[in-house]
Amino acid sequence: MSASTPFAELSTTDADALIISDDPLHPANHIPTLCKQFYTHGWVTGTGGGISIRHGDHVYLAPSGVEKELMSPKDIFVMDWKSGEYLRRPEVFKPSACTPLFLSTYKVRDAHCCIHTHSQWAVLITLIVGTGKQNNGATDHFAIREIEQIKGLSRTGTGSTTIAEGGRKLGNLGYFDTLKVPIIENTAHEEDLKDSLEAAMKEWPEACAVLVKRHGVYVWGRDVVQAKTQAESLDYLFRLAVEMHGLGLQWV
Amino acid sequence: MSASTPFAELSTTDADALIISDDPLHPANHIPTLCKQFYTHGWVTGTGGGISIRHGDHVYLAPSGVEKELMSPKDIFVMDWKSGEYLRRPEVFKPSACTPLFLSTYKVRDAHCCIHTHSQWAVLITLIVGTGKQNNGATDHFAIREIEQIKGLSRTGTGSTTIAEGGRKLGNLGYFDTLKVPIIENTAHEEDLKDSLEAAMKEWPEACAVLVKRHGVYVWGRDVVQAKTQAESLDYLFRLAVEMHGLGLQWV
Amino acid sequence: MSASTPFAELSTTDADALIISDDPLHPANHIPTLCKQFYTHGWVTGTGGGISIRHGDHVYLAPSGVEKELMSPKDIFVMDWKSGEYLRRPEVFKPSACTPLFLSTYKVRDAHCCIHTHSQWAVLITLIVGTGKQNNGATDHFAIREIEQIKGLSRTGTGSTTIAEGGRKLGNLGYFDTLKVPIIENTAHEEDLKDSLEAAMKEWPEACAVLVKRHGVYVWGRDVVQAKTQAESLDYLFRLAVEMHGLGLQWV
Amino acid sequence: MSASTPFAELSTTDADALIISDDPLHPANHIPTLCKQFYTHGWVTGTGGGISIRHGDHVYLAPSGVEKELMSPKDIFVMDWKSGEYLRRPEVFKPSACTPLFLSTYKVRDAHCCIHTHSQWAVLITLIVGTGKQNNGATDHFAIREIEQIKGLSRTGTGSTTIAEGGRKLGNLGYFDTLKVPIIENTAHEEDLKDSLEAAMKEWPEACAVLVKRHGVYVWGRDVVQAKTQAESLDYLFRLAVEMHGLGLQWV
Repeated sequence: MSASTPFAELSTTDADALIISDDPLHPANHIPTLCKQFYTHGWVTGTGGGISIRHGDHVYLAPSGVEKELMSPKDIFVMDWKSGEYLRRPEVFKPSACTPLFLSTYKVRDAHCCIHTHSQWAVLITLIVGTGKQNNGATDHFAIREIEQIKGLSRTGTGSTTIAEGGRKLGNLGYFDTLKVPIIENTAHEEDLKDSLEAAMKEWPEACAVLVKRHGVYVWGRDVVQAKTQAESLDYLFRLAVEMHGLGLQWV
Repeated sequence: MSASTPFAELSTTDADALIISDDPLHPANHIPTLCKQFYTHGWVTGTGGGISIRHGDHVYLAPSGVEKELMSPKDIFVMDWKSGEYLRRPEVFKPSACTPLFLSTYKVRDAHCCIHTHSQWAVLITLIVGTGKQNNGATDHFAIREIEQIKGLSRTGTGSTTIAEGGRKLGNLGYFDTLKVPIIENTAHEEDLKDSLEAAMKEWPEACAVLVKRHGVYVWGRDVVQAKTQAESLDYLFRLAVEMHGLGLQWV
Repeated sequence: MSASTPFAELSTTDADALIISDDPLHPANHIPTLCKQFYTHGWVTGTGGGISIRHGDHVYLAPSGVEKELMSPKDIFVMDWKSGEYLRRPEVFKPSACTPLFLSTYKVRDAHCCIHTHSQWAVLITLIVGTGKQNNGATDHFAIREIEQIKGLSRTGTGSTTIAEGGRKLGNLGYFDTLKVPIIENTAHEEDLKDSLEAAMKEWPEACAVLVKRHGVYVWGRDVVQAKTQAESLDYLFRLAVEMHGLGLQWV
Repeated sequence: MSASTPFAELSTTDADALIISDDPLHPANHIPTLCKQFYTHGWVTGTGGGISIRHGDHVYLAPSGVEKELMSPKDIFVMDWKSGEYLRRPEVFKPSACTPLFLSTYKVRDAHCCIHTHSQWAVLITLIVGTGKQNNGATDHFAIREIEQIKGLSRTGTGSTTIAEGGRKLGNLGYFDTLKVPIIENTAHEEDLKDSLEAAMKEWPEACAVLVKRHGVYVWGRDVVQAKTQAESLDYLFRLAVEMHGLGLQWV
C-alpha cells in the first residue's frame, strides 16, 4: 500500500483491504458517494434509510445511525455472503437493522443492490392508499399506469430486458403496463419486517420494490445502476402521484 | 493528441476524435455538463429524458438508459446529419429512442438543439389540461398569458429576435401574447411519436415545444442557449401553472 | 497585469480595468457569484431576473438575456453614476431592460444594490392578492405580520438599525409590525415600469421592495448584504404565505 | 502558527487561538460548515436561525445578522461556560439574540449543541396546530406517531440509547411512541423567550425540541451529531405533517 492511498491511516489488516480501492465504483467507495447523493434527494436524512451492495461473495453495508452524507469507506461493514459472518465490522458502529431485509432481496430475487429510503413521497403514498380513494379501494398496493417513467422499472427488479423465460414476460414495464408495488405493515423493529417483506416478494413476483407503511420503501436491482434507476423512477412516480392526488386527479 | 488529454484512455480513432475537445462548449463536453444540471432540476432522473445537439454536419446524442448525471464524452453517439449514419457508436449502449424526434425538430424547424425532459410539472400540465377545467375546455394544448417569463420563449423556437419575414411576426413572445404548447398523445414506443410530433409542429407553427401526454416535453432552439433558456422558461411556467391550478387560479 | 490574472484574455483597456479584481466581493466578481446562487433558488432561470450594484461612482449591471448561472466578470456592464453613460459595454450583449428600474432605487431610496427576481412565490403572491381573499380585500399590496422572519427586513430597505430621524422610526421591522409590499401592474416593456415603480416607492415610504404583478419583485438595500438578506427574507415570506393560503390559513 | 494556516491574517491572540484548528470538527470550523448545509435546507436564509456548540468549558456561537452560508471561523463568538463572559468577541458583529436560549438548553438539559431554524415547515406546523384541526384540538404541542422517522429522536434530546435510570425509559422513541413537541408563544424580542422555553423544557421532560409559534424551532442534543440528526428528523416530520394536512390526512 503506497503512501498516497487515501486510507493510509487505517491499519492494513485483511479486513480493511476489503474497503480499500482506487476504483470509485468499488462498493466501499460507491456506497458513500451514493449516500451523499441520496441525502440531497431527502431519502436518508436524520440517519434514516440505507444501502447495501452484494459484490461477488461480499456484502457491503452502510452502518446504523450514521449521518449518511458524511460516510467514508472505513465506516462500511462487510459480510461474507455464504456464511453470513462479518468479515469487517467497524467497532464504533452497529450493523444496520436493515441488514436482514437487504439479504432477503439478495436471496429471494437474486438482487445485488438494495436501496432503502425514508422518502416522504413514499410515506405519503402508503397513507393515501390507506384511505382507499385511489386504487379502486384496494389498500395493499400502489398501482399506477400510463406514465412514461414506468419504463424505468423492470419486472421483478432484476429482470434483463432481453431474456424471456417459459413464456413469462421479462424485461422492463411498458407504457400500458400497470406498475404495482405491494405495501406491507410496519413493525416496531425494522428487522421484524423480514418475513412480510419476503412474503410480499413471493406474492408479487413482478414487484421491484416493497413499500412499508408510514416508513419508506425498499427497492432492489440486479446491480447498482438498476437499483438506483428504479429507486429514482419510483420516487418520481410517488411524488407525481401525491401531486396528482392533491390536484384531484386519479392514478389509474 | 497529447498525454494530458482527458481521453487518453480512448483509442484515437477517427470516431473518437469527434468527441475529444478542450472546449467545454463542444457538444461532447457540453451534453454531459447539461445532463448533470438537468438531473438536479428533476428533468432526467431514472435515466429518463435526453438531449441532442446538431453541430455543423454532426448530430451529437446522449445514449439510451444511462444515468444522465454521470455521462462522459465517451458515452456520446455521433450521427452524420446528411446520411443519417452513425459516425460513432459506443458499443455498450443503445441509441436513444428519442433520436428520430430530435431529428424531426432539426428538419422541420431548423433547430440545432433539442431537450427532452420528464419533468413532473410538464406531466401534470398534460393531466390538468385533460380535465378541461383550464384552457376554456380545450384539451389539445396548454395556453398561458400575461406572465413575464413568457418573454423567454421565441415564436417557433428558433426565431431570431430581429428578423421579420413576409409580414409574419418573429422574435420572442411579448407579455400580452398567449403562449401555446400543443399536447400530443403518448405511444407505447417513443420512436412512434415522430409522426404526431411533426404534425403538431406543422399545425402549431409558433410553438417552440411539444408536450407529450403523461410523458414530458420536447423543447428546441436554434442553438443550445436558446433551447436551454426555453426549457427553463417552460418548466417555470408549467410549475407556476400547476401551483395556480392547486390554488384555484385560472391560467388565461 | 500579471500573467496569472484570470482575465488575461481580455485586452487591458481602461474599461476592462473596471471589472478586473482579485477581491471576490468586487462587484464584477460578486454579481456572477450571486447570480449562480440565485439560479439555484429559482429566481433567475431562463435568463430572467437580474442584479445591479452601485459601487462608488460606478453602477455594475448584469446584461440582458444571458444564462445567469454562467456569467463571468467580462459580461458585466459598467455605467457612470453621475452621467449615466456606459463606461464598459460588452459588444455581444444588450443592456438589461431592468437598468432604469435599478437606477430608480438608487435615486429614490439611496440604495446601492437592487435584486430583481422572477420567483414563482412572488408571482403567486401577486395573483393571490388579486383575488381579494387575503389582505382584507386590499389588492394593491401584500401584507403580513407576526412572522419572525419579518425582522430580516428594514424600513425603506436602506434604513440603518441604529439611526432615528425626526421622530420617524427607522431600522428593521419588529415582530408585531406589519410588512407591506406594494404591487404594481406589469407593462409590456420592462423599462416602462419605471414611473409606477417610483410612484410606489414614494407612496410606500417604508417599503423595501415592490412586487410586479404576474412578473416578480424588485428588492433593494443600502449594500449587497442588506439587499440579499431582504430578498431572501421576502422570498421566504412569499413562499410561506402561498403555503398558508393553500392550507386555508390567513396571513394577517 | 505556521504561514500555511488559513487564519494567518488574524493576530494570534489568546482569543483567536480558540478558533484556530486544523480539525474540521472543531466547533469554530464545524459551525460554518453546518450553517452552509442548513442554508441549503432553507433553515437559515435571510440571516435567520443559528447554532451553538458547547465544547468543554467553551461555548461557541454564530453571530447575529450574518449571512449564514458565508460564515468563517473568525466570525465566531466564544463564551466561557462557567462565568458567562465572552472570551472572544468579533468587533464587527453583535452576539446572537439566541444566546440565552442556547444556554438554557445547556443548563436545563445538559445539551452540548443547539440548533435554531426558521424552517417554513416548523412555522406552518405552529399555525396548523393553532387551528385545532389536528392533535384532537390541543393547541400547545405538536404530536405525531407511527412514522418510522420518529426513531431518529431521543427522549429529552440528550438521552443515551443504552442507559435506563430509576425505571424511567430513556433512549430513542419507538415507532409506537408519540412524539410531542411543545409550542410556545413568540415574543417581540428573541431573548425574552428564555423563561417560556425553560418552562416548556421542564413541563415536557421528554421533549428534544421546542417550537416557537410563527417563528421556528429550537432543537438540542448531547452532541452535534445528535442535535443535527434530531433537527433533520423533526424537519422531515414537520414537512410530512404539513403535506398530510394539505391532503386531508390526520397525524395521530
